[in-house]
Amino acid sequence: MNMIYRDLGKSFTEWFDWVLEAAELYDYGRYPAKGMGIWLPYGFRLRDSILKVMRNLLDSTGHEEILLPLLIPDHILAKESEHIRGFEAQVYWVTHGGIEPLDVKLALRPTSETSLTYLESFWIKSYKQLPKKFYQVVSMFRYETKSTKPMIRVREVTTFKEAHTVHESFEDSERQVKEAIDIYRKFFDELGVPYIISKRPEWDKFAGAIYTIAFDTLMPDGKALQIGTVHNLGQNFTKVFEVRIQKRDESIDYAWQTSYGISERVVASVIAIHGDGRGLVLPFKLAPKQVVIVPIYSSDKDQRNKVLQYCEKVHSLIKQAGIRCYIDLRDEMRPGEKFYYWEIRGVPIRIDIGMREVERNEVTIVRRDTLMKEIMKLEELPEALVKVGTEIDENLKERAWNAFKSKVRRMDDVDKAAAALDQERGIVELPWCGNDECSETVSERLNADALGTPLSIDKEEIRGRKCPVCGNDAVTFMRYAKKY
Amino acid sequence: MNMIYRDLGKSFTEWFDWVLEAAELYDYGRYPAKGMGIWLPYGFRLRDSILKVMRNLLDSTGHEEILLPLLIPDHILAKESEHIRGFEAQVYWVTHGGIEPLDVKLALRPTSETSLTYLESFWIKSYKQLPKKFYQVVSMFRYETKSTKPMIRVREVTTFKEAHTVHESFEDSERQVKEAIDIYRKFFDELGVPYIISKRPEWDKFAGAIYTIAFDTLMPDGKALQIGTVHNLGQNFTKVFEVRIQKRDESIDYAWQTSYGISERVVASVIAIHGDGRGLVLPFKLAPKQVVIVPIYSSDKDQRNKVLQYCEKVHSLIKQAGIRCYIDLRDEMRPGEKFYYWEIRGVPIRIDIGMREVERNEVTIVRRDTLMKEIMKLEELPEALVKVGTEIDENLKERAWNAFKSKVRRMDDVDKAAAALDQERGIVELPWCGNDECSETVSERLNADALGTPLSIDKEEIRGRKCPVCGNDAVTFMRYAKKY
Repeated sequence: MNMIYRDLGKSFTEWFDWVLEAAELYDYGRYPAKGMGIWLPYGFRLRDSILKVMRNLLDSTGHEEILLPLLIPDHILAKESEHIRGFEAQVYWVTHGGIEPLDVKLALRPTSETSLTYLESFWIKSYKQLPKKFYQVVSMFRYETKSTKPMIRVREVTTFKEAHTVHESFEDSERQVKEAIDIYRKFFDELGVPYIISKRPEWDKFAGAIYTIAFDTLMPDGKALQIGTVHNLGQNFTKVFEVRIQKRDESIDYAWQTSYGISERVVASVIAIHGDGRGLVLPFKLAPKQVVIVPIYSSDKDQRNKVLQYCEKVHSLIKQAGIRCYIDLRDEMRPGEKFYYWEIRGVPIRIDIGMREVERNEVTIVRRDTLMKEIMKLEELPEALVKVGTEIDENLKERAWNAFKSKVRRMDDVDKAAAALDQERGIVELPWCGNDECSETVSERLNADALGTPLSIDKEEIRGRKCPVCGNDAVTFMRYAKKY
Repeated sequence: MNMIYRDLGKSFTEWFDWVLEAAELYDYGRYPAKGMGIWLPYGFRLRDSILKVMRNLLDSTGHEEILLPLLIPDHILAKESEHIRGFEAQVYWVTHGGIEPLDVKLALRPTSETSLTYLESFWIKSYKQLPKKFYQVVSMFRYETKSTKPMIRVREVTTFKEAHTVHESFEDSERQVKEAIDIYRKFFDELGVPYIISKRPEWDKFAGAIYTIAFDTLMPDGKALQIGTVHNLGQNFTKVFEVRIQKRDESIDYAWQTSYGISERVVASVIAIHGDGRGLVLPFKLAPKQVVIVPIYSSDKDQRNKVLQYCEKVHSLIKQAGIRCYIDLRDEMRPGEKFYYWEIRGVPIRIDIGMREVERNEVTIVRRDTLMKEIMKLEELPEALVKVGTEIDENLKERAWNAFKSKVRRMDDVDKAAAALDQERGIVELPWCGNDECSETVSERLNADALGTPLSIDKEEIRGRKCPVCGNDAVTFMRYAKKY
């Protein structure tokens, strides 16, 4: 099995394009505007399952869903100078309504810190209203000039979950950053997607933030994919939009903010990281169809009826337990074609039912993750399926983490790191003195990007280590990878 | 009660603006771009409840949810000539990416017939794939030059549910129109929103359709609000985008299409039609919070504890039954303030619990729709609440339909119709000969818009009636109302 899984790495891009099309997840490249994809029904439902996990985590931690306008007037977007400098090259502008030029140019939201903070200046007056935790799931737009890639680098990001919070003090905003990291950890753990959490270097933080924490995963080709970011915005936006609040001690001060986001890259990572040479492999908890029943019968009418009746019985038994189960009754397809059809679509458990199963009051199940068969007694259903579903999710998570860990390597020497990356792409960590130029030098020599530093390190880990460029004492590690 | 309800009519616009703000549903007028509102958490949840009803109806009738790009290249939007003529004055255009002008202008979707039909030309080849029923819930944009109004006439319609179907034959598309009408009937019946279904006059049909069927309701001020439309598109779009299919008889033909849509006007109608002088009145099945418990206690600590304990008991009993229940434990607010707070927000059932209730093992409930009190025994819960919830929904629906019916009047004479509309705004139906000019004359004399004709009429109803303008035999009725 591992072979199939590993084989992916060789031509990940081709495989990814193939699986999006073959599993009918996402249409890309046909639409006559660059960098814009279509969520097809099956892909839409997978996306929806993933968003449900996120919404549950946010709702249960006091976040409230809202919906803000897409269009941001230029004078609002430009109010925070760092922010607009970071985004201006990538903003789509609406300049005309009908044939009339507009008085004020309107940006398609590249993110919503500016428009929301503007509104918060009306809404929030007192510490009594705080903390406020808003989120929305919307399309956002970036006029990407680099080459685009389905779900991974698009011009319309259709699945932007952006959260925005407001606090009374810096300490409260720091606690919120921790909560956000914790929520994202739980989220990726639920999806079985491995990650490494880094504090992005100063030159790569979100435009307008004090600092940015990022979650990166590795795609099967060993390139790093940023799948989530958390920003402490300090008072940068509240100062320019004048969000003043009365504090507990009756003084007046600007409020403190954080923001954090994910996008459809999360869906891409679920597809890419769990998939294998035969197509999608979906975690049981996320699969739009968790179990598919394939009836197998000869041309004998009586046998056919018996098999189909038994299938219906098994189907209703499973459905009653709240499992998303589907019987594939298509007459024009042979069982082998159906196996192939559902394998590509990554359905976690297939149940094959023929006369043998009918006679013995059994079912034969085939796990998508291992392709292993197992016989189950009818009376063990549906509990046994739930158990297997849980095992599938654990197995997917474990094998994803194992593959990930083997590609994250801590080293002391740049040449050895370069050789290691040459042999197997992934992440290398090297001691760092804290000097930006040293990190730049390493980046160039490795032909890799600086992902950032660990959130915390044990003093013992770093003691005695030297920056491989200047030779000074290292204060932390810097991580490098080829980024998407 | 009816008094409060009817009083609304006098200053509906002020009331509507007030309730959106006071119930914290929707922020309008603060955002620095015209015609764009913000869904606040409570409004977002109400919108979500309503969308759930719609999604259930669509999913259970074989509709599949997808997501298409927002941006439509100008050459795609302009392909169907009637369509672009209908929309061109109202389209927002993206002309720049960063500081660069774009090679191809991109429209913010005013609706998605063009972009989807373009894609269907790749996706659909055979009758075996049909019918196809797609839908999406997205933002759409119209550069409205008329004065805007929150949720009712906006420039960003954030809750556009558009469905698009493809069929083998005209007959199949006609059946689909009937299914769509049936789905919308069930939808509005679930919301308790009354409606009248009309075939829009030729000059008011959707740009690019063969014909348009519309659902109109009446706002408390007697003005008609279009809340849903169903279009038979014939082959108008499939011909220009060349969606050719192989038919059952092996011939090749262009496919047939329908489309149908609703928007946040549906949310506006739920708010406006059920609301009263005290604020929102939400149907039990739609309310984000269905039951709110307000503890009432004196300053005596022991009493307070007893009341709060009993409240918790009642709360968990109700929650276990899957009812969305909330205890209002805010210490800084007196019970009277809480009553007022939840009344404005339209919570269907309030439960007041004081020492009297604790001692008698009872609860006192107050229905939002009638403001009537009722005592319930603890052991009757939660069933009794579900029963009252159902009664509330039936009552809201009935009183809305009664108010509606009293404002829809069939008449034979234009002067009398004018007088009737003068006395009480609403809809009048007059016999019509079928000549557009006669209808225009009536419109002018009534200072009202032609809504369209009934989908079917009994021959007996129309026999002997004359067009009030030309005096010729009438063939049907034409409906008139002042439209939003």
